[in-house]
Amino acid sequence: MIEPSVIGEENARREAALRADYEALGTRLARDGIDIEAVKAKVAAFGIAVPSWAAGTGGTRFARFPGPGEPRDVFDKIDDCGVVHQLTGATPAISLHIPWDRAAPEDLLAKAKENDLVFDAVNSNTFQDHADLPLSFRYGSLSHTDKAVRDQAVAHNIECIELGRRIGSKALSIWVGDGSNFPGQANFTRQLDRYLDSAREIYAALPDDWRVFIEHKMYEPAFYSTVVQDWGTSYLIARELGDKAQCLVDLGHHAPNVNIEMIVARLIRFGKLAGFHFNDSKYGDDDLDAGVIDPYRLFLVFNELIEAEGAPGFDPACMLDESHNVTDPLESMMASATEVVRAYAQALLVDRTALLAHQEANDALMASETLKRGFRTDVEPILAQARLEKGAAIDPLATFRACGYRARIGRERPAVSGAGGGIV
Amino acid sequence: MIEPSVIGEENARREAALRADYEALGTRLARDGIDIEAVKAKVAAFGIAVPSWAAGTGGTRFARFPGPGEPRDVFDKIDDCGVVHQLTGATPAISLHIPWDRAAPEDLLAKAKENDLVFDAVNSNTFQDHADLPLSFRYGSLSHTDKAVRDQAVAHNIECIELGRRIGSKALSIWVGDGSNFPGQANFTRQLDRYLDSAREIYAALPDDWRVFIEHKMYEPAFYSTVVQDWGTSYLIARELGDKAQCLVDLGHHAPNVNIEMIVARLIRFGKLAGFHFNDSKYGDDDLDAGVIDPYRLFLVFNELIEAEGAPGFDPACMLDESHNVTDPLESMMASATEVVRAYAQALLVDRTALLAHQEANDALMASETLKRGFRTDVEPILAQARLEKGAAIDPLATFRACGYRARIGRERPAVSGAGGGIV
Amino acid sequence: MIEPSVIGEENARREAALRADYEALGTRLARDGIDIEAVKAKVAAFGIAVPSWAAGTGGTRFARFPGPGEPRDVFDKIDDCGVVHQLTGATPAISLHIPWDRAAPEDLLAKAKENDLVFDAVNSNTFQDHADLPLSFRYGSLSHTDKAVRDQAVAHNIECIELGRRIGSKALSIWVGDGSNFPGQANFTRQLDRYLDSAREIYAALPDDWRVFIEHKMYEPAFYSTVVQDWGTSYLIARELGDKAQCLVDLGHHAPNVNIEMIVARLIRFGKLAGFHFNDSKYGDDDLDAGVIDPYRLFLVFNELIEAEGAPGFDPACMLDESHNVTDPLESMMASATEVVRAYAQALLVDRTALLAHQEANDALMASETLKRGFRTDVEPILAQARLEKGAAIDPLATFRACGYRARIGRERPAVSGAGGGIV
Amino acid sequence: MIEPSVIGEENARREAALRADYEALGTRLARDGIDIEAVKAKVAAFGIAVPSWAAGTGGTRFARFPGPGEPRDVFDKIDDCGVVHQLTGATPAISLHIPWDRAAPEDLLAKAKENDLVFDAVNSNTFQDHADLPLSFRYGSLSHTDKAVRDQAVAHNIECIELGRRIGSKALSIWVGDGSNFPGQANFTRQLDRYLDSAREIYAALPDDWRVFIEHKMYEPAFYSTVVQDWGTSYLIARELGDKAQCLVDLGHHAPNVNIEMIVARLIRFGKLAGFHFNDSKYGDDDLDAGVIDPYRLFLVFNELIEAEGAPGFDPACMLDESHNVTDPLESMMASATEVVRAYAQALLVDRTALLAHQEANDALMASETLKRGFRTDVEPILAQARLEKGAAIDPLATFRACGYRARIGRERPAVSGAGGGIV
Repeated sequence: MIEPSVIGEENARREAALRADYEALGTRLARDGIDIEAVKAKVAAFGIAVPSWAAGTGGTRFARFPGPGEPRDVFDKIDDCGVVHQLTGATPAISLHIPWDRAAPEDLLAKAKENDLVFDAVNSNTFQDHADLPLSFRYGSLSHTDKAVRDQAVAHNIECIELGRRIGSKALSIWVGDGSNFPGQANFTRQLDRYLDSAREIYAALPDDWRVFIEHKMYEPAFYSTVVQDWGTSYLIARELGDKAQCLVDLGHHAPNVNIEMIVARLIRFGKLAGFHFNDSKYGDDDLDAGVIDPYRLFLVFNELIEAEGAPGFDPACMLDESHNVTDPLESMMASATEVVRAYAQALLVDRTALLAHQEANDALMASETLKRGFRTDVEPILAQARLEKGAAIDPLATFRACGYRARIGRERPAVSGAGGGIV
Repeated sequence: MIEPSVIGEENARREAALRADYEALGTRLARDGIDIEAVKAKVAAFGIAVPSWAAGTGGTRFARFPGPGEPRDVFDKIDDCGVVHQLTGATPAISLHIPWDRAAPEDLLAKAKENDLVFDAVNSNTFQDHADLPLSFRYGSLSHTDKAVRDQAVAHNIECIELGRRIGSKALSIWVGDGSNFPGQANFTRQLDRYLDSAREIYAALPDDWRVFIEHKMYEPAFYSTVVQDWGTSYLIARELGDKAQCLVDLGHHAPNVNIEMIVARLIRFGKLAGFHFNDSKYGDDDLDAGVIDPYRLFLVFNELIEAEGAPGFDPACMLDESHNVTDPLESMMASATEVVRAYAQALLVDRTALLAHQEANDALMASETLKRGFRTDVEPILAQARLEKGAAIDPLATFRACGYRARIGRERPAVSGAGGGIV
Repeated sequence: MIEPSVIGEENARREAALRADYEALGTRLARDGIDIEAVKAKVAAFGIAVPSWAAGTGGTRFARFPGPGEPRDVFDKIDDCGVVHQLTGATPAISLHIPWDRAAPEDLLAKAKENDLVFDAVNSNTFQDHADLPLSFRYGSLSHTDKAVRDQAVAHNIECIELGRRIGSKALSIWVGDGSNFPGQANFTRQLDRYLDSAREIYAALPDDWRVFIEHKMYEPAFYSTVVQDWGTSYLIARELGDKAQCLVDLGHHAPNVNIEMIVARLIRFGKLAGFHFNDSKYGDDDLDAGVIDPYRLFLVFNELIEAEGAPGFDPACMLDESHNVTDPLESMMASATEVVRAYAQALLVDRTALLAHQEANDALMASETLKRGFRTDVEPILAQARLEKGAAIDPLATFRACGYRARIGRERPAVSGAGGGIV
Repeated sequence: MIEPSVIGEENARREAALRADYEALGTRLARDGIDIEAVKAKVAAFGIAVPSWAAGTGGTRFARFPGPGEPRDVFDKIDDCGVVHQLTGATPAISLHIPWDRAAPEDLLAKAKENDLVFDAVNSNTFQDHADLPLSFRYGSLSHTDKAVRDQAVAHNIECIELGRRIGSKALSIWVGDGSNFPGQANFTRQLDRYLDSAREIYAALPDDWRVFIEHKMYEPAFYSTVVQDWGTSYLIARELGDKAQCLVDLGHHAPNVNIEMIVARLIRFGKLAGFHFNDSKYGDDDLDAGVIDPYRLFLVFNELIEAEGAPGFDPACMLDESHNVTDPLESMMASATEVVRAYAQALLVDRTALLAHQEANDALMASETLKRGFRTDVEPILAQARLEKGAAIDPLATFRACGYRARIGRERPAVSGAGGGIV
């Protein structure tokens, strides 16, 4: 954790300017009938989860270039995520990935408590081979042609649920790499049916108050077909499984040009939106930092969430899922969490009464302008004020750079040499 | 119709070569345990529908360049489609589009009978304004915010069913242009709910032995969102409506890179495949001739259909849906129908026992090779022999060019001047 | 034109709020060392051209739904564009399209003067047949296989130059629909060589102080290949022609996912950026209003333009090119021009010294944040203040709605019935 | 190497059938005026290179699943590629990748000679860090902001040339991962200028009879921009460098929907086509086996090559570049090489006189049919006969499976455990 005094000093230098900006914005919003304090309260209450794996430097199939202070284990990752939350006040939960983060539940709980974090959904992994498992997932896992491999994959997922129960998680998140690289390699229907059989076994092991998140992806690592290729298949799987199964939307897992906010609306309409893996992308599953490529798209997703707010049972889980290849992973998490909160705040500002009226009148231009009016408001003063009030940093990135945390863990943790990617 | 003697003369010149090729292919297939006569019988029994509108030259929003002999009305279109069927023996049905083809049922039936054609699904049109309807579809039809417009659209669809009943159609095909061009213009959920309400009214008017086909499309004419944007929404609509509602797959209505054959497999798996609008595309809904851009994709679609053959209730409707902008529309229909039949024949040749064995063994390469073995067989002799035996042309295109039909209708029908597209 | 008093009254109601917002923003920017007055001066000096054709309702190949007050001729269009400029102060030039806008030069000049407009680049049209030309462009124009058609297309372009000379234009903008719909239809190399031959003849007819803009497009109306398919071919054509030939970038004419701002940078680097056709798109050449889908992309384009500012000979032409299918075309032009100016203003705010330092230090996150800091500034007060000071409207859309112009032309100009698109 | 007697026995079982098929095809082709022997001679003379790295199992950023008999070093790879050539007779050259394949030139030459192989282009690697180099390529190589890193990258490329000279290579192939993951991270123009400076130094070190191949790629490993992002930039680089610099086309490195065969034609037209990295893809740079997804696209590329045959200086280098993740890599190489040769053979069959006539007459349909006639000919008998006559296998895959090579190297070479990809 960072010394609170460091945060205090950094905040002190920025407080006067923040106050001026916050007041000016409050005045402007009041003119539109918006109470800035109410918006700030909602923003302050909004939190997103961070994945443990995002604390380390990511890579591609070509290479990975680690930096100083790479986390050595799940405990280092929790410490790192704790710092992200301390500075942003926006990431109160961490999501573990098994087997990477396997550890004694009591140790995990203790470390999390130390960092003021709780545990979000637990993630299984059947897209890689495990050192302690006899069978290979080369040709699939939950949908493998061999029942023994499927059983191994199911057992691993149930192990994840078991661990999750003991650390307070309430959901299992399933993403598989199953698919095919050649036309003909897989029988689409048999493969899906095998997936469904396996998923039903996992579903049966879910505690009563748990959900299971089905995550679709168009391609990669399979390059001709993927068993859960889009939201349509994801929906059908979730429906086959039951009420505790819902569909997770990762912003980078869609075909080019697809209208993602519409998929979100459809899943909400049919009661199956689990939540999100936030990131941004320009080409494929680029796993770039949220909001760096198309911030308006992120806003439009939140526009749908605000639209649906208050509906019975509507409770989307929000998590980052990014690959930090060329930045300090902790800085990227801070910036990304801030972008997600920013989109939420902007969407809160949209005048929904006016929007609905324009929609009903087919006044397309004014409907668009109504959204834009929310989007182009610079809500940074609201975000910063919310952070300040909860003891986090007015400027998380500058404070992180000032506090010396990266240098310290760079000294404490051994250097990691650049490893090759998957190509050789 | 074309003089049978012309077809006979043309065939006579090609018969010896065909016999030699057919025998050589028969020998080769026999070596693989395939009975060429059995394949030919299936090919001969396979037919696809042609849409009446494909008989005229198509265009883009920029321009339309009509050729000689453009059909003046639905009766000209039926005559033209009759010639296509006469020469290919592969297009025994024609699909009408209302209001373009509105006419007295008895006249339609008489003209169809004359041309040895029957009527396939009837298509409604609520993407254009009708001269005889008071309200505009500018902002939508079945999902319009105004109940009066929705009622008008519903009534039009019911009129289509009525006409269809009287000419022997057994299905209504619905495609709407409803959507939005601006974020915010439409409330996604309200828009879909309005669509569902309207669709339920139409569904209620369906005769017992009819089906309704829901056709999805990613974009165009709406360029930000479309109310039935993908197969996921199409499926959900069809499920909400009931057993008589199914999902139509147009090969050009998907996002870039999407695995269409997998969507076909999914719709089959969940009992909702209505059938196809066949065409080809490189960029968007290009409506190019079937098989001219990616013939292997067309084959892979048929691979799924053969895979599912014999399943209870499995009866996909096959139709062309193309825009013939730079070719003689009748020639394009002949070539396209032939390509669809070709893909069917190639898919019939796939050794499904071997394929399944390779799939179960995760032998991806041999599975791919097994498909390829079917695809790369030159099945033209089978197609030509089937045509010959039913009195059609061994070489439909050459025979069409020899017969003088286009010149004749060019003389009989008045020239049409090039009209602008939608841009001005 | 609109009564200045109407504008004055509308502005009076908004002036106090604007003053407060402008001051608050000035204070915030001053903290960053930015002089808001200097920014405003640049914004006030920035203008973009509007195309005459955007004054009418656009359409798709499926349909066109005109509204009240559609312009009857080029003079109506100039009047309409005059109103757009009067209210936004941002669109001082109009771009004509021949043959649609053919008229006596003196009449054009008089009408433009009346509306305080000048003439921007003139646009030729060889993607449609002309009533007064004997040959069809069905199979192409500048690259047609028939020399006579090519000559006709060249002559038309030269006629455009002639007209342009007399009305003060300084550039010819060439976009052709030439391409192919089938593999094999066109020989790519011969087709390009024919295009080059024709373009050289046009180039030879350019006055000394003119430029010719080559506009590339990936597809539509040709759906397999286009003769000027991308910036690579556009560049090579411009280089073959000479220094007066440059490459025009339309934001909707690229392949999915393409990094457009990088293309802009490349064309600048190699001295061939002509300028822009601004619009926005989600799927293809959607011709949506600028900035409604991806405002950050628009900003990133301007980021490149600011980066290159001051380079010798750097003088990009900026124009809107949109299809207004579901909005009032004049409102869309106002909103779009404003979005373009907004992106320019945001890009002006970027701290380029800091940006370069972050780039040199490979500090990817801070480089990104530096851009974002400019982008998320709400520059509306700067834009509005610049408008106010030049007698335009603080809120152009509201003022337009208040002034009754649309109702007036709706009465003066005859109603146009909804025409079909290119499909039938 | 495989015992020739094994090949002989396998061929003996297939020879009679082959003779029958070859004769039947010869008869059919003769009817079209094509001499099957002449085609076979061209096919027999056609060879493509294989990359050394394709001999091992590939992977993704998520995982890599090696199989038995993974090559331990470059000598194992050469042995493996030797077997591919022995069975297909189609892959007489191997392309090395430095530093992966660094070894004493005399040893490389001896091992290649043993396997009847020569060395194709040598490939540098600056997308990964090298154990023996002090500086990291994390933020780029030839275009890095730090001159010292650029110098290191240049020196590595010159080392590759040096090694290549000694083993008989005649070309250096350069692909870099340089680019950016965030808008703003890189200054596009400065980055390109640095690349050009570095490339000029490498170019200066090229022997007189060498070429340098510039390989562009749209994205991956950089996910916002790439310094050599498309053929336009690749062309401009090659032109800046000089006559020995040309542009390499990898079929998977383009934006979605891009017309690759047209890019090939453009590069030929402007004298800059270096050659190809053949593979296939459905989504991105999937590196799937050539021809498994879209065999017609592969054919259309060869159609351009045949079209350009005989032009002065036209000598495209053909190489496979694939990632074999779920197949036996040697089998994939055999199948892929066969697909490339197949496309070449099919393209040879196109009646170019007829094609040109149809093009000149704007007979789009017959032009398309003329290409299709070549494509749908089953040329396998020609390919097999050519293999048989040069002592290779009629059926390379079956013969490989029969010969026991994989089992043998599986025993000789130690098992490799499944390694993770780049993500952790």
